[in-house]
Amino acid sequence: MSSPAVDFARANHTRFLEELKALLRIPSISTLPEHKKDVKAAADWLAAELKRIGMENVEVIATAGHPLVYADWLHAAGKPTSLCYGHYDVQPPDPLDEWKTPPFEPTERDGNLYARGAVDDKGQMLMHVKALESLFQAHNGKLPLNVRVILEGEEEVGGEQIAKFVREHGDRLKADFALVSDTEMFAPELPTLCVGLRGMIYTEIEARGAKTDLHSGMYGGAAPNPFVALAQIITQLKDPSGRILIPGFYDAIKAPSEDELKAWQTLPFDEEHYRTTEVGSSQLTGEPGFSVLERTWARPTLDVHGMPGGFTGAGAKTVIPAKAVAKVSMRLVPDMTPQQAFTQYKSYVESLKPKGIELDVRLIHSGDAIVVGTDNRYIEAAKDAMKDVWGRDTVFVRGGGSIPIVGDFERHLKIPTVMMGFGLPDDNLHAPNEKFHIANYYRGIESIIVFFEKLGSA
Amino acid sequence: MSSPAVDFARANHTRFLEELKALLRIPSISTLPEHKKDVKAAADWLAAELKRIGMENVEVIATAGHPLVYADWLHAAGKPTSLCYGHYDVQPPDPLDEWKTPPFEPTERDGNLYARGAVDDKGQMLMHVKALESLFQAHNGKLPLNVRVILEGEEEVGGEQIAKFVREHGDRLKADFALVSDTEMFAPELPTLCVGLRGMIYTEIEARGAKTDLHSGMYGGAAPNPFVALAQIITQLKDPSGRILIPGFYDAIKAPSEDELKAWQTLPFDEEHYRTTEVGSSQLTGEPGFSVLERTWARPTLDVHGMPGGFTGAGAKTVIPAKAVAKVSMRLVPDMTPQQAFTQYKSYVESLKPKGIELDVRLIHSGDAIVVGTDNRYIEAAKDAMKDVWGRDTVFVRGGGSIPIVGDFERHLKIPTVMMGFGLPDDNLHAPNEKFHIANYYRGIESIIVFFEKLGSA
Repeated sequence: MSSPAVDFARANHTRFLEELKALLRIPSISTLPEHKKDVKAAADWLAAELKRIGMENVEVIATAGHPLVYADWLHAAGKPTSLCYGHYDVQPPDPLDEWKTPPFEPTERDGNLYARGAVDDKGQMLMHVKALESLFQAHNGKLPLNVRVILEGEEEVGGEQIAKFVREHGDRLKADFALVSDTEMFAPELPTLCVGLRGMIYTEIEARGAKTDLHSGMYGGAAPNPFVALAQIITQLKDPSGRILIPGFYDAIKAPSEDELKAWQTLPFDEEHYRTTEVGSSQLTGEPGFSVLERTWARPTLDVHGMPGGFTGAGAKTVIPAKAVAKVSMRLVPDMTPQQAFTQYKSYVESLKPKGIELDVRLIHSGDAIVVGTDNRYIEAAKDAMKDVWGRDTVFVRGGGSIPIVGDFERHLKIPTVMMGFGLPDDNLHAPNEKFHIANYYRGIESIIVFFEKLGSA
Repeated sequence: MSSPAVDFARANHTRFLEELKALLRIPSISTLPEHKKDVKAAADWLAAELKRIGMENVEVIATAGHPLVYADWLHAAGKPTSLCYGHYDVQPPDPLDEWKTPPFEPTERDGNLYARGAVDDKGQMLMHVKALESLFQAHNGKLPLNVRVILEGEEEVGGEQIAKFVREHGDRLKADFALVSDTEMFAPELPTLCVGLRGMIYTEIEARGAKTDLHSGMYGGAAPNPFVALAQIITQLKDPSGRILIPGFYDAIKAPSEDELKAWQTLPFDEEHYRTTEVGSSQLTGEPGFSVLERTWARPTLDVHGMPGGFTGAGAKTVIPAKAVAKVSMRLVPDMTPQQAFTQYKSYVESLKPKGIELDVRLIHSGDAIVVGTDNRYIEAAKDAMKDVWGRDTVFVRGGGSIPIVGDFERHLKIPTVMMGFGLPDDNLHAPNEKFHIANYYRGIESIIVFFEKLGSA
């Protein structure tokens, strides 16, 4: 596979990688207020880069939260318009002591680039920019199609500001399809398009007992314990087999089609290999009667992420804390809605209130589940482009994660999204030692170049 | 009530209080390694003070942990010997933001002195020293009885070093009785001797699932969740009514005598007043069929103190943590033993192991439950001395907390302990805004002076 733009990209591998490293050095952790300036610095870095490569109307758009970055190039009359989306914020790096090299000092090791955000999503987002740069360079300062770029800085904390922008300024994002690279390949060397995502609700349950922290010697046996209360509630949310016990929770589920389920069975997937290499636990868990792919792509799930409160230091402090919190999220599948799921969950949790405990059940953020139709020219072109670059048939999969913006594009802009991602299953997203396979960064850039050239020449 | 020593103490109120403040300013938090120097500084401060007032053979004894402080004065031939015990280490002050004034800047407010350690145990420990100083001053540099002082710096983390010292160097602590002031009065103005304490085991359950932290979108539905596992285990440790479900856990319990139970019924105690003023929860909890005093003094209980692991920051991080920990302690009553209780607990917890989870059940520290006989001359003298100073009959109570050293004194030194404490029920031990009622500091000093003078003149 070759074209002048692909040749340009290949000739610039080293520089493209160094530019990604520069972006990864900015600790743009959107959930931590002390990193607000870093998030802004990442936005400014990207705006400067978009301007440098030839994009127009570049703007860092201030919001009530972290800024958006917008740019466009709209001079390909009669050609389709792509809306390129990415996010430049990252998850917190904790637990820090489990990183082999510092999370914000990108380090090459065994063909991979290790850093927080390497694949989620700075590396994948920058593939778009580098593809555009290569196309500008190879097409005499022009692009083969129209492009708008919109980047956000709070995907990891719910993406509230971009959702608002999409709702209120749809005219500024007018396009024929969106391109999102925030997903992964099903297996190394296997070109993959993601055509479905789970939605989510992320919640907190706060349990309050005594008015102040109490000594467990003096008050143990009389004062309610918020951790015990939360444990009782969590245990009633999901049975030991993994089935969620919230009344009505499964009612709205639309199962995958027979064809889709059949296609999943042909994917190169071995549960035992997945267990040992990716999860590493003694057994896998989850609802009985469903395969791992069904459980992680097409079934709702419930997880607890942390339980702040009380004493968490080394050693012993014999406190009955006045309050404790459980961070609980649920993944949703079509046609469940976050609104309905949260209503069912909240009312069920409140019905479980243990003796002497007051509860506060809060929704922190949410996103819709989505399924993209595969019968449109953009998905077709993407499929063909990936096949050209990777030399193998492209497979369609779903993702277990949530990219709420894809639902917003569908709902408010009425456009389909091409989810063309180049992460690998062992990339450690949201975990210590996150990485991006460097060869995938390069071939991702090529895939996008070819995809855009196909759409521009049709 | 008056004597030259009491008069001296009264004339020195202001200085005695300022000296306590100086000691409280040292953040001697034994559980936090970064405060190791502060713990040592508190030991040195006390050694200097003991030397200054006239004690002999003053020594800061290095140990594998925090130091012990020893001193004696043994020239009252034919008189009994008191072993005065106290601890100069304190609990961590967190949650810091709930303190009205800084925990290590002692502040007077409404007749109380607010600071971490004010009552537990620096204030009560210093009462001994100030009583001894007053006696030396009023008795021409002599004491009316023999005194050994032993102070430790790791009571809040299990007291391992002093336990070892008592086991191995019992000859250096030879005495007729021990005096411990680390308990509270049953009610304001009600002189109280504590004649029973609960024991305890403090444990950690570590639950491990996946080999690394995983993204709950990608792995939710397949990877085991350590927090959900811990919730399931905790829920099976204690039923919703508060009854502990560990097999055999209640078997060794020796109930209080009919007389003791009757005496408790005459104590000024109102459950509803206790609920609203001390606990502040909407309801009290605990085993059905037992009064609050029975539940907190004479029944074993189980509490969860914290659940470190995962994401505990603000906002949302969608992690399935590789591991999580529950800090769980149990209070024990006569004749349960820590060894037996931990064995029963560990084996039961391990039997509850959820699918895909590995468990590690650790004992962090433990202490025996004890009951002191009330028919000895030391308890008699203490009872009379308190009646003299407070003008009311002294009551006998038990405590729900644990002072493991009292069991060690009984077992290895074969001596009874007089637990004469002057804390109040609302002193916020181990919690934000710990305080000591200043009048009780002064009257505690007087009570000890009179107690020692009674024993010396008998």
